[in-house]
Amino acid sequence: MAKSKYARESSTIMTEMVLPNDTNTLNNLMGGKLMHWLDVVAAIAAQKHSNRIVVTASADNISFKQPIALGNVVTLKAQVTRSFTSSMEVFIEVSAEDIPANKKVMTHRAFFTFVAVDQNGKPIEVPEVIPETEEEKELYDGALRRRQLRLVLGKRMKPEDAVELKSIFNMS
Amino acid sequence: MAKSKYARESSTIMTEMVLPNDTNTLNNLMGGKLMHWLDVVAAIAAQKHSNRIVVTASADNISFKQPIALGNVVTLKAQVTRSFTSSMEVFIEVSAEDIPANKKVMTHRAFFTFVAVDQNGKPIEVPEVIPETEEEKELYDGALRRRQLRLVLGKRMKPEDAVELKSIFNMS
Amino acid sequence: MAKSKYARESSTIMTEMVLPNDTNTLNNLMGGKLMHWLDVVAAIAAQKHSNRIVVTASADNISFKQPIALGNVVTLKAQVTRSFTSSMEVFIEVSAEDIPANKKVMTHRAFFTFVAVDQNGKPIEVPEVIPETEEEKELYDGALRRRQLRLVLGKRMKPEDAVELKSIFNMS
Amino acid sequence: MAKSKYARESSTIMTEMVLPNDTNTLNNLMGGKLMHWLDVVAAIAAQKHSNRIVVTASADNISFKQPIALGNVVTLKAQVTRSFTSSMEVFIEVSAEDIPANKKVMTHRAFFTFVAVDQNGKPIEVPEVIPETEEEKELYDGALRRRQLRLVLGKRMKPEDAVELKSIFNMS
Amino acid sequence: MAKSKYARESSTIMTEMVLPNDTNTLNNLMGGKLMHWLDVVAAIAAQKHSNRIVVTASADNISFKQPIALGNVVTLKAQVTRSFTSSMEVFIEVSAEDIPANKKVMTHRAFFTFVAVDQNGKPIEVPEVIPETEEEKELYDGALRRRQLRLVLGKRMKPEDAVELKSIFNMS
Amino acid sequence: MAKSKYARESSTIMTEMVLPNDTNTLNNLMGGKLMHWLDVVAAIAAQKHSNRIVVTASADNISFKQPIALGNVVTLKAQVTRSFTSSMEVFIEVSAEDIPANKKVMTHRAFFTFVAVDQNGKPIEVPEVIPETEEEKELYDGALRRRQLRLVLGKRMKPEDAVELKSIFNMS
Repeated sequence: MAKSKYARESSTIMTEMVLPNDTNTLNNLMGGKLMHWLDVVAAIAAQKHSNRIVVTASADNISFKQPIALGNVVTLKAQVTRSFTSSMEVFIEVSAEDIPANKKVMTHRAFFTFVAVDQNGKPIEVPEVIPETEEEKELYDGALRRRQLRLVLGKRMKPEDAVELKSIFNMS
Repeated sequence: MAKSKYARESSTIMTEMVLPNDTNTLNNLMGGKLMHWLDVVAAIAAQKHSNRIVVTASADNISFKQPIALGNVVTLKAQVTRSFTSSMEVFIEVSAEDIPANKKVMTHRAFFTFVAVDQNGKPIEVPEVIPETEEEKELYDGALRRRQLRLVLGKRMKPEDAVELKSIFNMS
Repeated sequence: MAKSKYARESSTIMTEMVLPNDTNTLNNLMGGKLMHWLDVVAAIAAQKHSNRIVVTASADNISFKQPIALGNVVTLKAQVTRSFTSSMEVFIEVSAEDIPANKKVMTHRAFFTFVAVDQNGKPIEVPEVIPETEEEKELYDGALRRRQLRLVLGKRMKPEDAVELKSIFNMS
Repeated sequence: MAKSKYARESSTIMTEMVLPNDTNTLNNLMGGKLMHWLDVVAAIAAQKHSNRIVVTASADNISFKQPIALGNVVTLKAQVTRSFTSSMEVFIEVSAEDIPANKKVMTHRAFFTFVAVDQNGKPIEVPEVIPETEEEKELYDGALRRRQLRLVLGKRMKPEDAVELKSIFNMS
Repeated sequence: MAKSKYARESSTIMTEMVLPNDTNTLNNLMGGKLMHWLDVVAAIAAQKHSNRIVVTASADNISFKQPIALGNVVTLKAQVTRSFTSSMEVFIEVSAEDIPANKKVMTHRAFFTFVAVDQNGKPIEVPEVIPETEEEKELYDGALRRRQLRLVLGKRMKPEDAVELKSIFNMS
Repeated sequence: MAKSKYARESSTIMTEMVLPNDTNTLNNLMGGKLMHWLDVVAAIAAQKHSNRIVVTASADNISFKQPIALGNVVTLKAQVTRSFTSSMEVFIEVSAEDIPANKKVMTHRAFFTFVAVDQNGKPIEVPEVIPETEEEKELYDGALRRRQLRLVLGKRMKPEDAVELKSIFNMS
């Protein structure tokens, strides 16, 4: 197994069109359908990084500010930000385009984590991530903080041990 | 509009069978499919509470510890915990059953929030929630704390103003 | 294997939203889609009673009086009424809700029968059903009559032997 | 509107392949999926006869004796047997083929009824049916008897008035 | 294995209704969905001729002149025209009907080729085709010419060797 | 409307995972499903170039040499090569990856054409295409030849007028 891989090697782009069955009464994309797409594109990015079967470990808090309309083209870009032994954090950016109206907006940013497993579902080590661009480095650095928040929220880490979280909560 | 409604009036149960197209290479339910179901059942609960069209506002951090296998029966129970003007927090509990093996396990707990809107998508006020059972009261009380965490994570509240969050992070 | 189980132990609730692809030109739920849902919820109830793989044996005459509109929430409640060696009759009640209009109507009542089978598809004995409520007792009693009608219609019983059917057809 | 049309003018053939998501744990077609297909092919036959929008009025008792396996090709042939003012009875014959094994079996016979409606969902008169072949004449004659059974089962006709039913139940 | 079979023995008819998710912004059937149906109906015809598993080898140039509207009934008729060792050419004719408007139009003609394979995916010989009607004979004769065009376009035959193609391109 | 746009401005990438329902008996992707994806990704590229609603005009001959297996990740890259008044030719390259096996192969190359239309379905002029890279220039040049072949095959151009085609068929 490669000891480390560039973040960009896991880059995955998915394009979807919003169809009638994907929408609610207001003709906007349902949140659950978007989460489904997020999971698929992020899983593929995690697979590319690890060359392994991967299973979803968690999805971070996601907020839906912008409605995405029927007929819009949705582009999802996913890339692994950092790995921790057998788990990988994936960052996904979503944009939506109303092409005939020539309007494109960034609509969502999300973080999912995946665990690489062998054929029996046992966790297995993955390569480390080498960030190159400024954005990749920022995402890499923030990954530790987000991980602690997940552990605290999942009651697997005591808040007082979540050293990195202090930067969010201004704790002295 | 009713000024307030009982939490249980929004109770919604959804039952799904895990089909081949819902599963990954290990024959387990894909995380994204489960999130899709969570969104649908929670949206119906929020509709029942508000008698309005609702749109997903956010999904809280969710972790996937237990795999759910092909052929399992998945039961999702959703109920509104508390409302804040036009938004409602919904709690969803998921269990999975391997019926021939007579094995049933609680697999997930999740929180989604929805906003009630009119036909033009404008937010509109919803009834307050009256919790009755011990569990409903606990969920009602915790809703404020979870809401502050969402606001802080969404950068719409300063951490130092998130008074309720201190209980999580043991901040003095 | 348990010798007998309460009817309510098989109780299964399924909630579905009527999506565009489920509807006909008048924007009402297609009959065939409803029958599909009936089969799924009833199969799960029969699985819960028998803790076995089950296969659909028959669907009784069903009439579609009430149209169910696009966007409606459909609730299907299924429960085993009675078992006969390896077969089980399941009763399903369907209601449809136009939530924003605050209108809920009972739309259908249906009976399906299932056979419990082993891994090779061979029929296998199931527990008896213990009815408790008045409605459960009525359904239990009527099951024999409905079974005879199925056998006569399937030409597996001679009409003159269908003793229970006389109550329907006022035969002396 | 044509006063009458030949039965064969409504003839409709549908061919489907059994895919993984259509099957149960034993890899056989689920009953509910077959009912869905029955409804679609029968609705098209009723549309062809009436040149109208049609809605499902009822599905007669159907029994599932033969399992249909994953990968089988299912052929459904539907034809209107007789009309009653605005309603039409449709007969559907189903066969399943395991083509590589060169095995084809008739698996099901079913009757559905449809009502022709205008754009507002109001029932509207349809042409009469002219049967030509022996089988079409038998189906035409039997339609009256099956209709009375539907009315009795739906409690819209008293058993003692169901004159045609006597032939089934040997009532003197 | 039969040495030869009549063309009509492979005849397959498929009927589909155009549903909301199958349509583009103009409410017309998407080209890709039609190609999907073409492939399925043609594969079944090729299976019937060969009594084998078949895999798609190629789809000829297809043009979409007539839009097919939401709610239309689409009929696809497929039949094997000729075989070449282990491959079969299938001809498909598509018509679309707006039944309430009593309008039916032929919309497409297409040619697909399939290869019969054994369980390991190895090509395997198929029966020859015996054309009977005038149309079947014409399709049989043209099959050679279309095959050469496919080979030339796939760069597996030199244009100067494509003797039959000269009739298309008036080459002396 | 812009007079001309760079070819790369229409670049669209779609990523799909092969699911059980997309596969044939050999667990390989069905040809029809791939054509469906080709149509969707190409339509989005044509929309991006024209900022219009587009409808599929034709799909060129496509051959399926490489099977794509269940669980593979399929990447489709589409880009407009050249426009002709209101029509656009789109080139699509397909690759398939078995990620755990670390194997990626180019599997297909395809050409689709689309027509840009207004809200009433009337054709409408689109920008010209500016090719930049060597590959884009080659595709741009070849577009004329492929267009003549389409016209000849569609019997809308006489073979002797198809000047560009001579290069394919070595006609003097």
